[in-house]
Amino acid sequence: MDKKRPLILVTNDDGHAAKGLCKLVTLMRTLGDVVLISTDEVMSAKSHSCSIHNRIYAKLVREELGFKEFRCNGTPVDCVKLAYQKLCDRWPDLVVSGINHGVNAATTVVYSGTIAAVVEACMNGLTAIGYSLFSLDPDADFDHLDTAILGITQKVLAEGLPKGVCLNVNFPKRCDEPMKGIKVCRQAACRWVEYFKEFYDENGECYYNLDGTFESDDILPDTDLWALHNNYVSVVPTCFDWTAHRCIEPMKDYELLSVKP
Amino acid sequence: MDKKRPLILVTNDDGHAAKGLCKLVTLMRTLGDVVLISTDEVMSAKSHSCSIHNRIYAKLVREELGFKEFRCNGTPVDCVKLAYQKLCDRWPDLVVSGINHGVNAATTVVYSGTIAAVVEACMNGLTAIGYSLFSLDPDADFDHLDTAILGITQKVLAEGLPKGVCLNVNFPKRCDEPMKGIKVCRQAACRWVEYFKEFYDENGECYYNLDGTFESDDILPDTDLWALHNNYVSVVPTCFDWTAHRCIEPMKDYELLSVKP
Repeated sequence: MDKKRPLILVTNDDGHAAKGLCKLVTLMRTLGDVVLISTDEVMSAKSHSCSIHNRIYAKLVREELGFKEFRCNGTPVDCVKLAYQKLCDRWPDLVVSGINHGVNAATTVVYSGTIAAVVEACMNGLTAIGYSLFSLDPDADFDHLDTAILGITQKVLAEGLPKGVCLNVNFPKRCDEPMKGIKVCRQAACRWVEYFKEFYDENGECYYNLDGTFESDDILPDTDLWALHNNYVSVVPTCFDWTAHRCIEPMKDYELLSVKP
Repeated sequence: MDKKRPLILVTNDDGHAAKGLCKLVTLMRTLGDVVLISTDEVMSAKSHSCSIHNRIYAKLVREELGFKEFRCNGTPVDCVKLAYQKLCDRWPDLVVSGINHGVNAATTVVYSGTIAAVVEACMNGLTAIGYSLFSLDPDADFDHLDTAILGITQKVLAEGLPKGVCLNVNFPKRCDEPMKGIKVCRQAACRWVEYFKEFYDENGECYYNLDGTFESDDILPDTDLWALHNNYVSVVPTCFDWTAHRCIEPMKDYELLSVKP
C-alpha cells in the first residue's frame, strides 16, 4: 500500500454483500488506500456488543494494489477493534461505516451496529464517519449520494474532527427532486415504538416477535429528522459522553443521602 | 399485586443466578411489588442489541404475593421492552437493573447490557436506575450497599427523574473503610484498551481472543472514576442524546458543501 495516500478503514453492519457497502468502498478507493472488514452475517441492531468470550476470525478474501478485504465472524465493533490493531499496516486516517440500508437518525443510533462501529473508532482516537440511507430496500439507489459523500469525506480527511467527536450522516431516500443541501443538526428525541406479536410454537409454547414503528414527536428544524423529511442530508456531530450535564448541579442533594452500611 | 404499592421492574445482564441480582430483588421487595425478568444466559457486553429476527420466550418461573419472576432468552433490552409491554399488569413506577458484577463507570457504559436496559427504559418514558459494583467477583459482597441503594431508590420513587434522564450508579468494592458518601458526577472519558491474543485452532486457522485493560486518563474530581477510586458512590445522570452540541455551530461550514448528484 502507498503510505502517502490516506488509509481508510471501511466497515458496516449489513454484511459483506450489501449494496451500500460496495458503493462506499468504490467511493473511498478514489480517495485513498482501503482496508475493508465486513461481517459474515447481517449485524443490524447489534449495537455496541462485542465478542468477549468467542473466537474472532478474520479472513483475507481479496487483495489488490491499495485494497485489502477481510471478512469477520464478529460484530461491527469487533471488526473495528481488530482491524486497526491487527489488520492495518498503519494507523488508519479515517474509519467509515455504511452506507447503511436504513436510517440511523434520532434515537435509532442506540441500536445501530453501523454507528457503534463509528463510536468505537472515535473512542480509540480514530477519525470516523457513519453513512446511512433512509431506505431499508436492499436494492436502494445510492448514486445520488456520490458528491455529498466525497465532499464530506474529503473535508474530514483534510481537517479532522474535534477530539471525542465523530459524524453521523444520514441521507434522504432518492426522490424526484435533487437533495437540497446539508444540515448540521442535533439528534432528534424520537424513538421506535415496539409491539410484540404473540405466536405459539410447535410445542404450544408462547413466543414473541418484535416489531415496531418509528414515532416522531421532535421534528423541530434543528433536528436530523427535520432535515431528512425536508430532503436535506443530516450531519450530527456525535459523542460518547452520555452524561446529562445540566442535571448534575440540580441533583447534588443526592449527596446528602446516607451510605452507612 | 397490590396496586397501591409501587411496581418495580428488575432486570440485569449477568443472568438469573447472579448474586447481585438476588440482592437487588431482596431490597426492591421491601419497597414495592416486583416483576423480575432476567436473561437465561449471561449477557455482558451485549450493549443495546435487541432481537429483531429471533423468537423471544419469557417463562414465568415463580409467583408469590407481590412478586413475579420471568426468565427470557433475549437480551436485557428485549427483557425491558417485553416486560413493561406484556408481562407487567400495570405501568412500572421504576425499572432497576443490576447489581452488575463489574463497574459501569466512564466509557464502559457503551458496552454494558445493564446500562442498556436502563437507557431503553428511559427512552420509553420509564424511570430507571442502573446499579453496578466495581468488582467482577461472582461471589462479591453486596451487603455494604443496602442503605445507599434503598436511599437512592426511595428518593427516585418519591421525586422521579427529569424527562429523558436515568441514573447510572456505581459502588466501590468493599474495603476496610466504610464508603465516604455519594458524588453526583460526570462520566469520565476513559476507555478499555483492548488487545488481541492470537491462537491457532484445530485446523491451523488463526483466531483472536479479545482481552483488555481499563485505562484512565480523565480521573478529575468531577468524574465517576474519581469518586469510585476515593471510596464514594458515583451517581451519573445519564441521557441518550449523543449530539456533541458544542460542535454544531462550528461545523456549519459543512452546509456549504455541494450535494449535486
